[in-house]
Amino acid sequence: MTTPREIRRAAIVVTGTEVLSGTRRDRNGPWLAGRLREVGVQVAHVLIVGDRGADVLAALRFSAAEQVDLVITSGGLGPTADDLTAEVVAEVAGVPMVLDSALEGRIAAIVAPLQKRFENLDADALAAGTRKQAMVPEGATVIEPAGTAPGLVVKAQGGAGPVVVALPGPPRELQPMFEAALETEAVRGALAGIGEIRESVLRLFGIPESEIAATLRAADDRGIALAALEITTCLHNGEIEVSTTYAPEDQDAYAAFAGFVAERHAQTLFSTDGTTVDQQVAAQLVAAEMTVATAESCTGGLLAARLTETPGASRYMRGGMVTYANDSKTAIAGVSAAVIDADGAVSQAVAEALADGARARLGADVGVGITGVAGPGGGSVEKPVGLVWLSVSLALPARSGAAPDDSPETHAWDVPSAEVVRLTRSVTLPGSRADVRERATTVAMHLLRRLLLQAGVSAGARAQSRQPPAAAPR
Amino acid sequence: MTTPREIRRAAIVVTGTEVLSGTRRDRNGPWLAGRLREVGVQVAHVLIVGDRGADVLAALRFSAAEQVDLVITSGGLGPTADDLTAEVVAEVAGVPMVLDSALEGRIAAIVAPLQKRFENLDADALAAGTRKQAMVPEGATVIEPAGTAPGLVVKAQGGAGPVVVALPGPPRELQPMFEAALETEAVRGALAGIGEIRESVLRLFGIPESEIAATLRAADDRGIALAALEITTCLHNGEIEVSTTYAPEDQDAYAAFAGFVAERHAQTLFSTDGTTVDQQVAAQLVAAEMTVATAESCTGGLLAARLTETPGASRYMRGGMVTYANDSKTAIAGVSAAVIDADGAVSQAVAEALADGARARLGADVGVGITGVAGPGGGSVEKPVGLVWLSVSLALPARSGAAPDDSPETHAWDVPSAEVVRLTRSVTLPGSRADVRERATTVAMHLLRRLLLQAGVSAGARAQSRQPPAAAPR
Repeated sequence: MTTPREIRRAAIVVTGTEVLSGTRRDRNGPWLAGRLREVGVQVAHVLIVGDRGADVLAALRFSAAEQVDLVITSGGLGPTADDLTAEVVAEVAGVPMVLDSALEGRIAAIVAPLQKRFENLDADALAAGTRKQAMVPEGATVIEPAGTAPGLVVKAQGGAGPVVVALPGPPRELQPMFEAALETEAVRGALAGIGEIRESVLRLFGIPESEIAATLRAADDRGIALAALEITTCLHNGEIEVSTTYAPEDQDAYAAFAGFVAERHAQTLFSTDGTTVDQQVAAQLVAAEMTVATAESCTGGLLAARLTETPGASRYMRGGMVTYANDSKTAIAGVSAAVIDADGAVSQAVAEALADGARARLGADVGVGITGVAGPGGGSVEKPVGLVWLSVSLALPARSGAAPDDSPETHAWDVPSAEVVRLTRSVTLPGSRADVRERATTVAMHLLRRLLLQAGVSAGARAQSRQPPAAAPR
Repeated sequence: MTTPREIRRAAIVVTGTEVLSGTRRDRNGPWLAGRLREVGVQVAHVLIVGDRGADVLAALRFSAAEQVDLVITSGGLGPTADDLTAEVVAEVAGVPMVLDSALEGRIAAIVAPLQKRFENLDADALAAGTRKQAMVPEGATVIEPAGTAPGLVVKAQGGAGPVVVALPGPPRELQPMFEAALETEAVRGALAGIGEIRESVLRLFGIPESEIAATLRAADDRGIALAALEITTCLHNGEIEVSTTYAPEDQDAYAAFAGFVAERHAQTLFSTDGTTVDQQVAAQLVAAEMTVATAESCTGGLLAARLTETPGASRYMRGGMVTYANDSKTAIAGVSAAVIDADGAVSQAVAEALADGARARLGADVGVGITGVAGPGGGSVEKPVGLVWLSVSLALPARSGAAPDDSPETHAWDVPSAEVVRLTRSVTLPGSRADVRERATTVAMHLLRRLLLQAGVSAGARAQSRQPPAAAPR
């Protein structure tokens, strides 16, 4: 960094054998990492361990040694014997465990209704569990339970070492209790004087990762202050994400870097503001008040599912068809059987007919057609596994009557003949069946974005979108 | 375990700032943990770190110190400067980095086609990236690239410390390369003498997790030797998975436990052999030579995508419709507009009409209809967010002519009227929009499975499936 600033770091320790074994996905690590980043804290690591005491102790000792200011733990605060986080935290902090009688009373009040709800509940077992949960490291600040387990904020003895925040595992308990922990004196102290960190993301589609590596070297040669920026690049699903974190005073260095990338990769850079292609397409469709419909073969509904993932998708999504069997392409999407016979199901003509069929049958402005060989079987020399044909078509509507925005230029829309704009391409995608299907869906999103852009539809540019490419003479 | 056996432990280190920051979900940690468990290795921890050199080094040193026999890393083997896993592994092992010229040639041959695919590619950048990827810790065993990055198997100098296996981050590269790494001499040596661990999975649908906890206590009371079994239960998407690992000599204890679960949960236990509901439905459809078609509203194509996920899905999947807009339900699935007006789009009648429409329009034996309120908006008092109506209908075909299997009993099929069997239900699902969509898809799979079972279609029971429920008098 170019100027000194206070960096605060945190470590996250997730306990739970079911998470470690891979049978259950950890939701707390990613959530805590995101929230910590938002409050300006750098995350050193996420460490997932099982419910073995020695492993939890080693995890906490390692995290405490990693020059972090905070350690957040999730899980292991329940009433049973294998819930041992509180004791391990006390051991690492060098303080004894003590009974918090007032806390014991509050937990007892919370669990009391359980005795009414379940018959044959063992009252002694319940009381023992309550007492166990009220045993806390000496000097700990208690975070009131969102469920039945309290959270703990613990300072190391003598203040040498990070503040440990121990939270229960269920996300709906952990999340509000983390917010409460942020307000405790111990955590405020640990994060005092924190420097703001900014994060910006560039997204590119259609170039290999090595090109970005070359751009980084060239930016360095050009004298752009890359040392002030923490840049990571990652390739996902054919898209390259260039993520940069930097201090506010290094904003100019970031702007120079982002400008340099934009200059070298004008054709493939599609996002500079953190938006995804999905968000951009949704915004384009909403801005243009256009609707979309899909007809998918090899992707089997993944594109439709992706277009309906966002709340409010009904504003632009008409619907879709999954034309998996060949005769279903004819039956529901209206693809001519003769075209399928002549060119084969995986062909330019069928992709285009699917796009047009989706548009026509579902009454949408834009249609998308996808047909390909997802594999692992079914490939041939001419049509190998991974070959996918994609087509998008847009019928610029033949409108009459009041033009949008009452702009006099838009009266060219009164011409009653509709214009169809179309983009069709083939790609040969690497990887497994799942990879081919997922990547083909991403290619379709980008094709959709490009078509809308070419038709003059950019997000937020509604008036422009309704104008014909060239203004008609008046 | 009842008898002494050799325990081998492994640590997993996942590198990648995008995973650490919570913006990308880590798929490699869970996958590696699952595969290690399958080969009988206990996982000590999964440690996720960013692409900072000091953090990767600390992660490897910590993992190496944790009395593990193997450390598996994912990521950081790419061609850019922030890919630094190989160097850090060399540092931990105490060996220098050396150029493997033969490897450089093989990587160059792999990336050469990129030069044809992309115009204006920087050849020097490509060559520099290739050379970087061919720098390996001295004495490392190279795992041939599944993509462009090689993997590495590295023994510590003098053999003091775990064997480190470094694999690239993309799952489709990591997975086959992990299998290749298992076959290397170094890994075989580290895992020599390992005790066999068996793993069995029971799956249940439609009961709360607390019921399984009660069953475990009851099994203990019954005297079943649970101490010999390592049992984890996990709730996912409405299904409960009871996963048990045990030594071969504890097979009888497992059989007693599995039998006890089957006895107490006969109605909800749907899998005792590790199969998923997806595999079971596919097997049922194939066995009965039946086809399926879908019409989805709130799930937006997720069910069609799930039914086409498996290679060979074209044997039973005709296709689907995503009837997102109300009038698309009428236009493509043939749902009467009057029914939608009378009962609303989210209703029993519309779910049934969607199932029938899918079946009729796509010429399938079985139709599935789904309509619901995925949220977060759009809910009401009568139809809250999470309410989903699902219907499956099966037309037992009116066949004439030769009966399947030439069985004389099947002549009842000659009756030309088809019989329709239908199951319809509503559920109110908790969670986010994504949760509701995913869980509704799972409920649909189970409804499909039950319908096929009720119609006499069980996997592998083709002849039975073609017989009418009661044999007609001869």
